[in-house]
Amino acid sequence: MKKVSSALLPTIAIDRKASTPIHRQVYERYRAAIVEGTLRPGQRMPSTRLLATELGVSRIPILNAYAQLLAEGYFQSRVGAGTVVSLDVPDHVSLVQPRRTSQPQPGPRPVGRRPVTLPLPLGRNLPRGSGAFVVGQVASDQFPFQVWNGLVSRYCRSPRGQSLDYGDPMGSRRLREALSEYLRTARGVRCEADQIMIVSGSQQALDIASRVLLDHGSRVWMEEPGYRFARGVLRLNGCEIVPVPVDPEGLNVAAGIQRCRKARAALVTPSHQYPLGYTMSASRRLQLLDWAERTGAWIIEDDYDSEYRYENMPIGSLQGIDRNARVLYVGTFSKVLGPALRLGYLVIPNDLAGRFLEVRSSMDIGPATFFQAVLADFIREGHFSRHNRRMRMLYGERRTRLIECLREELGSAAEVLGGEAGMHLSVTLKGIRDHEVAQVAAQRKLWLSPLSASYCGKPQRQGFILGFGNVPVNEIEPAVRQLRSVLRT
Amino acid sequence: MKKVSSALLPTIAIDRKASTPIHRQVYERYRAAIVEGTLRPGQRMPSTRLLATELGVSRIPILNAYAQLLAEGYFQSRVGAGTVVSLDVPDHVSLVQPRRTSQPQPGPRPVGRRPVTLPLPLGRNLPRGSGAFVVGQVASDQFPFQVWNGLVSRYCRSPRGQSLDYGDPMGSRRLREALSEYLRTARGVRCEADQIMIVSGSQQALDIASRVLLDHGSRVWMEEPGYRFARGVLRLNGCEIVPVPVDPEGLNVAAGIQRCRKARAALVTPSHQYPLGYTMSASRRLQLLDWAERTGAWIIEDDYDSEYRYENMPIGSLQGIDRNARVLYVGTFSKVLGPALRLGYLVIPNDLAGRFLEVRSSMDIGPATFFQAVLADFIREGHFSRHNRRMRMLYGERRTRLIECLREELGSAAEVLGGEAGMHLSVTLKGIRDHEVAQVAAQRKLWLSPLSASYCGKPQRQGFILGFGNVPVNEIEPAVRQLRSVLRT
Repeated sequence: MKKVSSALLPTIAIDRKASTPIHRQVYERYRAAIVEGTLRPGQRMPSTRLLATELGVSRIPILNAYAQLLAEGYFQSRVGAGTVVSLDVPDHVSLVQPRRTSQPQPGPRPVGRRPVTLPLPLGRNLPRGSGAFVVGQVASDQFPFQVWNGLVSRYCRSPRGQSLDYGDPMGSRRLREALSEYLRTARGVRCEADQIMIVSGSQQALDIASRVLLDHGSRVWMEEPGYRFARGVLRLNGCEIVPVPVDPEGLNVAAGIQRCRKARAALVTPSHQYPLGYTMSASRRLQLLDWAERTGAWIIEDDYDSEYRYENMPIGSLQGIDRNARVLYVGTFSKVLGPALRLGYLVIPNDLAGRFLEVRSSMDIGPATFFQAVLADFIREGHFSRHNRRMRMLYGERRTRLIECLREELGSAAEVLGGEAGMHLSVTLKGIRDHEVAQVAAQRKLWLSPLSASYCGKPQRQGFILGFGNVPVNEIEPAVRQLRSVLRT
Repeated sequence: MKKVSSALLPTIAIDRKASTPIHRQVYERYRAAIVEGTLRPGQRMPSTRLLATELGVSRIPILNAYAQLLAEGYFQSRVGAGTVVSLDVPDHVSLVQPRRTSQPQPGPRPVGRRPVTLPLPLGRNLPRGSGAFVVGQVASDQFPFQVWNGLVSRYCRSPRGQSLDYGDPMGSRRLREALSEYLRTARGVRCEADQIMIVSGSQQALDIASRVLLDHGSRVWMEEPGYRFARGVLRLNGCEIVPVPVDPEGLNVAAGIQRCRKARAALVTPSHQYPLGYTMSASRRLQLLDWAERTGAWIIEDDYDSEYRYENMPIGSLQGIDRNARVLYVGTFSKVLGPALRLGYLVIPNDLAGRFLEVRSSMDIGPATFFQAVLADFIREGHFSRHNRRMRMLYGERRTRLIECLREELGSAAEVLGGEAGMHLSVTLKGIRDHEVAQVAAQRKLWLSPLSASYCGKPQRQGFILGFGNVPVNEIEPAVRQLRSVLRT
């Protein structure tokens, strides 16, 4: 019967030359596995027929062994489930101390000295819920599941969908071509498909870029405040972070030069500074490029949510005005299709593409093929642009409503920043401790990201990064009221 | 006669038939002119009315373009002077000739010093084809697509399938539970779901383990010959590789101790040594564990193809007999379901699980959710075991036929190694240069992996690793004949 074959076969070796009869060997192996906890109560055992075939022995000794194990209470027969490990293991078993991997003995356990300072992705203390105001969540009820699942099914049935081998280590050619067209047109990125590498999200892009371009001890400019996950990956790679202040024109290049002219690289979010939301001004962009060209530095441009811009047309990328091939452009599909997909991309200067590929190949060989193919179809058939446009309208409404509500409920106590683009904005508040407020709010299922966590040095601001991507417009007012009420406690 | 204005009109051509809207064209032309230095800081711009007339377009798109250029800081409004090019644009920018990103200028382009020695995944010179004798390919025509695609569709339609957010950074709980049961039962691995991390294949597992456990300069025992991709990831992490010879009992522990007793870690393939196929003997296993326990070293057990064993029952894992929680167990789904999926796993000692999670989170946040869920269903509903058993039969036939054919066609000139398990075996040949033979063979669409590439030092053997996973049994003889004919040329 089919259901029997779902039982896993244990590792038991039978020695035909041994003086111990086969039924005894089988019995002993199973008993030992149960005593040691390798087999668990309730776990299904293979049928005697299957096990006999598997071990290459007659079924008689197996039947005998099973009968013994049943008689002694190691096994049970359960209607509809065949033979299982007994749910109440006999008493004498508990006298044996199973040695568990989980309790290591003393002795040196040296781990690497690489600095790991990253708060866990979902916050060490703060859980990640769903809805108001989780950062980085997309409108899950607006996703075009029907179209997407249709493409999934179509791809499953296609001959291409039946290739099980590694794909192109740079990523699917079709996807990279569709993407280069999109990036040239919508983002002003100068690139060909050959320069694009598909990665598992912008975090991996930052990791790969760090491993190719930077050394242990390399100094890197980072926006202050900035994206805390980027701090984590830079530190993991042994880099020294040089925090450079951000003002309404974006990263203060002159301040960066003063602090550390010879930094090896700068990591910036020029389109929508994370977390304050400023757009880097033209003059700052040119100053930054000029610094990079003069000193031989690299610029990593994280263009993480440029798809959604509400008050002007999208700001062109920094990469597009770079004349010295100093900019590594990083993008992600997480803000459009959700982070579950784990797909992002890196646009690499031509002369570095080979080295990036070598480093990436040693990291994980290359990206999984399936959803790259589905996504390529999604872009090429126009669904991506259509969904983007629809979401820009929707997120625009949510953002406007959120700003209104914040003004109404919090008044002048709150400064709202960065609502011109993206799926989040920042609100700064005086006289609070944002971490503590966030803890309280989480108990009420209101999810706040403390602004202070974005600072590498001493936090200059307290407040919250509020994600509105996954908050329907009619839920915004109640959520802001709840925020106010948490602030008053 | 054009109206004379103090502002010069830049030469901007508007293409009314282009898909790019007019406001975007105007914006881009001006921005380019400023970046390229055609327009200088302080230079007056025409009024929007004049420019509209001049270009023969409505004033609306011109107003939009100007607003954008002002917002981004390319333009400034000056009282009495109208709109001018921003004074903050650095002067020298105008002296530089515009150049394409794709043709970087000279100047320092410092990249990291991390050693990258990995041959590209598909071989620097050798292409990867399909069929005889590509290593690491599964029988693509035997994959249970109907069952798999059914699970894919079912998951697409389920509410779980509609979550777009990050999943558990350790990997799907359901998958880890199904996997821990499988590993305990079929591989004798002692583990709970909490110790399992889902990764994108065994290569990423090695990378994460290296980043957690090793430092720049750490010395690591590696089997000689060994898995060349592992060399790549260790070198990328700055480790010093200590090649330790392999004999028919597996890694020679005494030789390792003699060469470098204080190595931080050893990377081994005890079930089926790659590439020679030996099984590590019980005494060597105990010696290795003893060395690790005495010196505080780690053991990374890469159990890459333990599912398929033909002559005995599966050999239990090294991890399962380790009483000191020194073994990191690495496995992959690539050998059962194909490498396209990019799914593997790491079993981590309990005391290290937190640190592994921190490092992994800074690398790529976590694994994509979709196929983890599908795979969990595939395992829980018994398809995984069933497919494994079916493939063991099939690969067993292919292996037997391959060994027969090699003996018939190559006779005593060839030594066949490692056919007891897995989806590949090795054949050593005297008096050939395996790299050169492989080049010639590739032109005839026969795919040979040179054995010499598996050596870190001077190759002690020449020959080939022959993958038979994706070679139907009736194609084996012709392929071996072709191999013979290539060897004779």
